[in-house]
Amino acid sequence: MDYEVADLSSNLLDVYRKKASFNSKDMLNFIDGEEIILFKQHVFTTLENDPLFARQPGEDIPIEKKRELTFLRVKQLFRYNFLTEEEAMANPWKSIILTDCLGMYDLGMSAKYFLSIGMFGRTVASSGSSQHNKYVENTNDMTFFGCFALTELSHGSNSRAMRTTATYDPSTQEFVIHSPDFEAAKFWVGNLGKTATHAIVYAQLYTPDKVCHGLHSFVVPVRDPKTLLSLPGVLVGDMGKKLGQNGLENGFALFHNVRIPRENLLNRTGDVTPEGRYITPFKDSNKRFGASLGALSGGRVSITRIAVVNLKLAMTVAIRFSATRRQFGPTGKGEIPVLEYQLQQWRLIPYLAAIYALDHFAKSIFMNFVEFQIGQMMGDKSDRQAEMGREIHAIGCASKPLGSWTAQRGIQECREACGGHGYLAMNRLGDLRDDNDPNCTYEGDNNVLLQQTSNYLLSWFHAKHIKGSRIESPLHTVDFLDDYQKILESRFTPTTMEQCMDSAVPVAAYKWLVCFLLGESQKRLEQQRALGKGDFEAHNNSQVYYCRSLAIAYIEHDCLQKFHDLTTDQDTPAGLRPVLSKLCALYGLWSLSNHMVTLYQGNYLSGRKPAELVQMAILTLCSQLKDDAVALVDVIAPPDFILNSPIGNTDGQLYKNMWSTMMQGNKVLERPSWWKEFCSDKPVVGSLRPKL
Amino acid sequence: MDYEVADLSSNLLDVYRKKASFNSKDMLNFIDGEEIILFKQHVFTTLENDPLFARQPGEDIPIEKKRELTFLRVKQLFRYNFLTEEEAMANPWKSIILTDCLGMYDLGMSAKYFLSIGMFGRTVASSGSSQHNKYVENTNDMTFFGCFALTELSHGSNSRAMRTTATYDPSTQEFVIHSPDFEAAKFWVGNLGKTATHAIVYAQLYTPDKVCHGLHSFVVPVRDPKTLLSLPGVLVGDMGKKLGQNGLENGFALFHNVRIPRENLLNRTGDVTPEGRYITPFKDSNKRFGASLGALSGGRVSITRIAVVNLKLAMTVAIRFSATRRQFGPTGKGEIPVLEYQLQQWRLIPYLAAIYALDHFAKSIFMNFVEFQIGQMMGDKSDRQAEMGREIHAIGCASKPLGSWTAQRGIQECREACGGHGYLAMNRLGDLRDDNDPNCTYEGDNNVLLQQTSNYLLSWFHAKHIKGSRIESPLHTVDFLDDYQKILESRFTPTTMEQCMDSAVPVAAYKWLVCFLLGESQKRLEQQRALGKGDFEAHNNSQVYYCRSLAIAYIEHDCLQKFHDLTTDQDTPAGLRPVLSKLCALYGLWSLSNHMVTLYQGNYLSGRKPAELVQMAILTLCSQLKDDAVALVDVIAPPDFILNSPIGNTDGQLYKNMWSTMMQGNKVLERPSWWKEFCSDKPVVGSLRPKL
Repeated sequence: MDYEVADLSSNLLDVYRKKASFNSKDMLNFIDGEEIILFKQHVFTTLENDPLFARQPGEDIPIEKKRELTFLRVKQLFRYNFLTEEEAMANPWKSIILTDCLGMYDLGMSAKYFLSIGMFGRTVASSGSSQHNKYVENTNDMTFFGCFALTELSHGSNSRAMRTTATYDPSTQEFVIHSPDFEAAKFWVGNLGKTATHAIVYAQLYTPDKVCHGLHSFVVPVRDPKTLLSLPGVLVGDMGKKLGQNGLENGFALFHNVRIPRENLLNRTGDVTPEGRYITPFKDSNKRFGASLGALSGGRVSITRIAVVNLKLAMTVAIRFSATRRQFGPTGKGEIPVLEYQLQQWRLIPYLAAIYALDHFAKSIFMNFVEFQIGQMMGDKSDRQAEMGREIHAIGCASKPLGSWTAQRGIQECREACGGHGYLAMNRLGDLRDDNDPNCTYEGDNNVLLQQTSNYLLSWFHAKHIKGSRIESPLHTVDFLDDYQKILESRFTPTTMEQCMDSAVPVAAYKWLVCFLLGESQKRLEQQRALGKGDFEAHNNSQVYYCRSLAIAYIEHDCLQKFHDLTTDQDTPAGLRPVLSKLCALYGLWSLSNHMVTLYQGNYLSGRKPAELVQMAILTLCSQLKDDAVALVDVIAPPDFILNSPIGNTDGQLYKNMWSTMMQGNKVLERPSWWKEFCSDKPVVGSLRPKL
Repeated sequence: MDYEVADLSSNLLDVYRKKASFNSKDMLNFIDGEEIILFKQHVFTTLENDPLFARQPGEDIPIEKKRELTFLRVKQLFRYNFLTEEEAMANPWKSIILTDCLGMYDLGMSAKYFLSIGMFGRTVASSGSSQHNKYVENTNDMTFFGCFALTELSHGSNSRAMRTTATYDPSTQEFVIHSPDFEAAKFWVGNLGKTATHAIVYAQLYTPDKVCHGLHSFVVPVRDPKTLLSLPGVLVGDMGKKLGQNGLENGFALFHNVRIPRENLLNRTGDVTPEGRYITPFKDSNKRFGASLGALSGGRVSITRIAVVNLKLAMTVAIRFSATRRQFGPTGKGEIPVLEYQLQQWRLIPYLAAIYALDHFAKSIFMNFVEFQIGQMMGDKSDRQAEMGREIHAIGCASKPLGSWTAQRGIQECREACGGHGYLAMNRLGDLRDDNDPNCTYEGDNNVLLQQTSNYLLSWFHAKHIKGSRIESPLHTVDFLDDYQKILESRFTPTTMEQCMDSAVPVAAYKWLVCFLLGESQKRLEQQRALGKGDFEAHNNSQVYYCRSLAIAYIEHDCLQKFHDLTTDQDTPAGLRPVLSKLCALYGLWSLSNHMVTLYQGNYLSGRKPAELVQMAILTLCSQLKDDAVALVDVIAPPDFILNSPIGNTDGQLYKNMWSTMMQGNKVLERPSWWKEFCSDKPVVGSLRPKL
């Protein structure tokens, strides 16, 4: 520990910045590159310079007002049009960066904007045909406002059980959209609460012969764009306050025999002829399924990224606070920054490492998704394309849990690590936690989604062991499983802490772990079947400690492997490789430490030494990285205006910033408006106590 | 798994209630007893019948209004005076039950009430002398409103570093209270934001000879009780919005040479004569220290309980939701309640077991604290009394972390387990999480407090090994450490899952664990000293994986041991012992599973079998307890009005209740007041884009 930093007048953040082992501008350049850096700066500066985006940290805004403000800001985003469609096509990564930037300002606002132009517009474009272009155009210029209505009050995860119906009436060439009862009301639909004029509604399609063709999507007008009043037969409203993201209103809708033209069916994968016959262009239902799985992954891949962005903000606050907050010190030597404490380092720095790992991971899988999307747009009907759809689905179903849980736990740790000051609304950690929380739930509950990933892995295992197929996937995330037997024979070999501090160590351990859990999950399933359990029950009874752990280990392995490859890549600047390698080793060992019991159980580790080496390596890496921590958050932090957290400002003047913000709050020094309630009308103690 | 429950018309909660293995009324009687049951009913019914306490789930109330409402409710509590001082003396447990009841209604309100009459009044009574009685009396009838001002803007954990001064001026026989700068402003003081008229202020006491006698407490008037305007020299105000508990306003105060009479020093442990000489009644500073440590523990012991109460509410919501929410099912057999899934059971039921364990534990340690308090009041200056002060301090410093973290994690799990509906404000899980969160921070950051506990344990270890003293404490929580050597030689012996399902198994493992971690922590400290580290640094570097784990293991052991004793006690009704034993075994094994690596490291476990047995025992216990879960929450749940969560109502009609609450929300079906912002003034896309 270094106790030099005792000069109270100096900016402690600068003291730490000077100690950093790398150049933070080089790191920013390496991660983002010039074009993205300039683009981010442009978006951030634009928002900062526009009074409509002004805000005061910790302000208490009524929901009605918050929604109005959010709407006005969204409208302004149309005027700024930061990214044209052509620009997004030319560099799809920029659309993610725009989501990052707007989400860093306010996730609810960002969600509101992208739910209409992205989720509504993009789904219409990809699921419909040229006849639906007008909806896309009208959404792009805000003539319409769109939303995406899948979930119902009584069904979320089990989307096949949706009960809204769309019955075709050939006499008028219309579909009749109907909700059988309020439990089938569309629910949780972002933008539907107050502003949506059109919804993509998922409903069971019935042809006149009373045959149900399953869930299809329809464009349903719900409000008059000229008045925002709801249309006849549509009971549409606001679900009320949520834990977070309250600038966005979520809504419900009940349909009472609402008629829409036949053309409003989004007919890419299935259509109904004017006479009422169901037709589909797909011959191979497996390929159709793979393609549709892949298409669903865009949301989950994006959420993985959004969660990491939330954690970046929280971590910036917590690290800067920890570097400037002093508490206790060695006798007679003054107080030291709390970042100097082993405990504080261990609480925060592994999450900082996770940010770097997950940031790179989220980018990689987004690029995979783009590759898949291009294939779809090109009409690629190959096996490889369908297989890529399956793989990207398996990745997204596990990357969303990994990202959202890491962020949720990390933000809570940041809140606690900032002590009481972290509990003050102005410092934003509460909003970050609340805004991030639904990432664990929407687009599929994390625990439920993980089953999709383990099923995918088990299907490869099955193919190999039954049919003898080679395990090799388009994105190569499962290729190592082909060496299953050999990997299972491997053991933990390091004998010193120094050896442990190489990310190759956790990478190797993870390979063993995934193989082991795959074998164990398969055994568990077989045991259950041997006990006479049906498929449904056998799977349910194999989740905890088996399939669930398997899916988590698989995705952690993939994230770690990708980061490991980056740190060992010759294209990675030599000046950055040392710090990136430490972050990678720390992330790997720290993640791995959640699986140590399994490593012992399966005899990958034995005896006292290995766990001790891993633990000491984690502590040593934390301590080595603590002088880099401030520079590492400088790389990921937005400007102070966007961060909007007085204890997290770049200048490190946490008390001045907090005090100043507090004193400019609403009626801070005034007595309460209801002061007479205290001063007169004194209570008679016990006057309302029942007399016995 | 039992798939019988497929009748949609029946109340699923009743279906589960009928399946329970025990009688929930018997359980309630056993835990609470008739007097407490009646008292709780009285408090709950009184609040429910008083329109002032009416509320609507999920309502968005501006902070100003929320505080007014909270103040009016607190005033009404004076009128109800649910518990007179005499009644509280006769049965101190009732004061905790009252805190439970009011906290279940609204923790912010409860805190506001007790901070004034309890924290202020009780501290004045216990730290002052008869001359201070008027403050107690005036607080008891709300002539004054009190608060407790210790923390400063730049110092929380390190309370010795507080910088507010109280300098005695013999010429006027006054103390001059002064804040050197804004970083020394009193901060985070509950009630100080808007309503407090008097504060207990902790300040460094200076006598005219310029000698500092350390931190002492003073009664300082801050606002005029007739106007609620602040007094000259006092800059007092509102800190603004917090993440939760917003009915309570926390405040700050800066003192500019504020003069108070000499008599306002709370002089139980030290006084200043009119001439300015410092005097103290304590001869043995060790005993004074032990006594003062014990006195500080009341808050932490209470917080342990408050946290468990928050978790009770969240768990009631989550279990009732899980028993009534159906999703998926075996092919052709309809959907099953999500409580039937292994994964959902494993997420929730261990926390339900933790509630029962911690509820009993919180009661036990409160009774210990009462015993200690009585000794203090009796003027007991014995070694045993001082020793009890040290022990209760060690317990409180670890029980608060155990309780608050278990609740925080458990509430988050409940939120996620309720899916999207858990994210709706009306269902209260957000408020519970936010209101519980500061329990991790106030009265000492959890991680910092744990050091006090490990220091206590290490001091016993040291005494035994250096002086050969027998380890035996007044409350017997450390007595087993006297068998240190023998315990360390013990090993995990069960060979079947059935053997594992006995709580004696985790109890024994915990004894080994505490001994092992004690020895390891001691070794780590010695290693650090051998490396030339000073005491401060040696301790800091021994926290993670050692001292911190030690303190946690110690308190988990104590909690488990006490619950284990209860389940094996012959006075525990035979009809309840089976379910209590299962809860105890589950709590023990589940808690222990966080320490498995250490058990493997230290060779208490080896090979594959033990971890597998523990895991299978956990899953089996969860599955055995799922039919008891609804009855178990019925025992701990308050009436629906108090619970205030539509998805958690007793009738199990989650959708009806949620729908009805939603439809009665504010302007649910109305278009927004700002609808013209959408319908006219359409944005020109890109109009604000910089022209290149």
